[in-house]
Amino acid sequence: MAELAALAENAVREHPAEALGYSPIDGLPALRDQIAARFATPELQLSRENVLITTGGMQALELLGKLFLEAGSTIAAQSPAYLGALDAWRPSHPRYHAMDLAAADCDPHRAMDGARFAYTVPNFSNPTGKLVGTAMRKTLIAAAEATGCWLVEDDPYGMLHYDGTPLPSMIGLYAKAHPGPYRGPVIYLGTVSKELAPGLRLGWVIAAPEVITAMTTAKQGGDLCTSGLCQRIVLDALSSGLTERIRPATLALYRARRDALCRAMSDHLGDLFDWEVPVGGMFVWATAKDPALDTDRLLRTGLDHGVCISPSSVFDPEGRNHNAIRLNFTLNPPEKLAEGIRRLAEATRSLLLENAA
Amino acid sequence: MAELAALAENAVREHPAEALGYSPIDGLPALRDQIAARFATPELQLSRENVLITTGGMQALELLGKLFLEAGSTIAAQSPAYLGALDAWRPSHPRYHAMDLAAADCDPHRAMDGARFAYTVPNFSNPTGKLVGTAMRKTLIAAAEATGCWLVEDDPYGMLHYDGTPLPSMIGLYAKAHPGPYRGPVIYLGTVSKELAPGLRLGWVIAAPEVITAMTTAKQGGDLCTSGLCQRIVLDALSSGLTERIRPATLALYRARRDALCRAMSDHLGDLFDWEVPVGGMFVWATAKDPALDTDRLLRTGLDHGVCISPSSVFDPEGRNHNAIRLNFTLNPPEKLAEGIRRLAEATRSLLLENAA
Repeated sequence: MAELAALAENAVREHPAEALGYSPIDGLPALRDQIAARFATPELQLSRENVLITTGGMQALELLGKLFLEAGSTIAAQSPAYLGALDAWRPSHPRYHAMDLAAADCDPHRAMDGARFAYTVPNFSNPTGKLVGTAMRKTLIAAAEATGCWLVEDDPYGMLHYDGTPLPSMIGLYAKAHPGPYRGPVIYLGTVSKELAPGLRLGWVIAAPEVITAMTTAKQGGDLCTSGLCQRIVLDALSSGLTERIRPATLALYRARRDALCRAMSDHLGDLFDWEVPVGGMFVWATAKDPALDTDRLLRTGLDHGVCISPSSVFDPEGRNHNAIRLNFTLNPPEKLAEGIRRLAEATRSLLLENAA
Repeated sequence: MAELAALAENAVREHPAEALGYSPIDGLPALRDQIAARFATPELQLSRENVLITTGGMQALELLGKLFLEAGSTIAAQSPAYLGALDAWRPSHPRYHAMDLAAADCDPHRAMDGARFAYTVPNFSNPTGKLVGTAMRKTLIAAAEATGCWLVEDDPYGMLHYDGTPLPSMIGLYAKAHPGPYRGPVIYLGTVSKELAPGLRLGWVIAAPEVITAMTTAKQGGDLCTSGLCQRIVLDALSSGLTERIRPATLALYRARRDALCRAMSDHLGDLFDWEVPVGGMFVWATAKDPALDTDRLLRTGLDHGVCISPSSVFDPEGRNHNAIRLNFTLNPPEKLAEGIRRLAEATRSLLLENAA
């Protein structure tokens, strides 16, 4: 926090024109270069032209909608899907081809055929917290190439990796097969919200230059530019290594909270829900063992018991999934997480009793 | 600049949760209260519920589009109109009822009949720099009440008042006739971009609570929230009186630049263009004396002569006005403004010679 405070002061004092004036629509050139350098590999060759700075990751989702969707367009979306993305695209009333990327019979090629883009969160998705395996990542890329469908790789949680080895990104896998200046179908979205601070509202898109140019035009009509002050702070946080230095502490904090939540779940929810312990991210997805348990009702009963959960219906474009819940473990300390789970167990039992009555 | 740097440092150090975390979608409560207090009068009673914080004034324009426009909706718009507003609303391909508020035969009632909202910049409009008189402001309010049309009062330039006395705002005029908690048809838009710093991307909407609630929902799908860091800096700049303290210097600087531009125009453009010296704002609007002068062509000829102007066509939804130009006087020092006008006179004469050939 002290370092960020100093970076904020320094940004205004040493770079007043950049921090306080209008920025280029597509972002400060030095920050675009920094993001390009951060993600480039010998195969994935990136330059400034591959990078757009956005006002948080959320704006990137909105710009995708502006760029690709007309009324009634189709989106192929990993299911369940991030609530915020569904919100961003709601104005054009899209149709969805759902892709359950964990299902054995999932056919991305069929889902992407006729879709404007495919939306995926391969690392620790919101809401499920699950990883999409490398084989499925390759299948998605192949489907994008075969169908001509853009493939969105939204990656806000990739750095929150607690166990094991990170899997290769789809944009990286594509570049391995097509090395050179990047022109591919994968549109990669990143943000500092999870690794630095959401209050800076700073994200980025890495994509083919034609996509960056078109999204820049869409951004002009949205907010003209992203705050120069926030851009300058992020540039200095990245180039000074602040983001790397704080990462071990962030990971240790969140790992301990995940463990505390999952331990409390084992103690209190084992007979009520099924779940997997996530190897990263911010969420545990738990499915009720009793198919008659309606998690929309559990939300209300939970609030009566002093605990708040996200019901699965809000992550379904059609609002039909009523049997699971999303639990966040990064916001609260272990003892509060444990108390929340105790209350959730009570609320669930109380609702099941009502059902039985 | 030193004060702003200190405010930025202080925001992170003293208010880390507000500055670095997610803010409420509608803005920090203390900032909403501050804006309400700043604009309230005994008749215009404002509370937090009347205020939405936006990511710059531009986002407010985009949210109006999201809220009120469907494909082919009609907007009653002051003509010529702010380019950025036309950009913000382009995705829904609106039809426009043009209102030339300086024309004797202007009929706002007819223009607003059937329109989703009316868009006006009563103080020193972009692009014309002109004031809408008090009588016409009252006519616009009466038309809004008679037609049920929302009346947008976009006011980024109101504080840049160099001569004479500011005119009453439309939201204030409405409240004089309807004192009490504000529930009226005027939607007032403000920003710190002109009085403090555009790099903070901080604006606000003051409107009836039902409008604020609906725009808040639209903002959620756009960028989730405005940067807490920027909000905290603006809150402290307003409450510490920084904005008031720097105002005299800003006005003196811009007044001198306006005078320098208009003096150079008198010296070099008197036989080529007609214009009025604006009493505020950032722009002079000049109409060519020769109706055959195409200012789209003048843009290109000007660039060849090393000067850039905004041609009138970009401020017309149909791109039909080709006979005027917008000149900005706030960005450059007097000697650069004078040199620009010399080059513009050369470019104009060269183009007129081409026309005659």
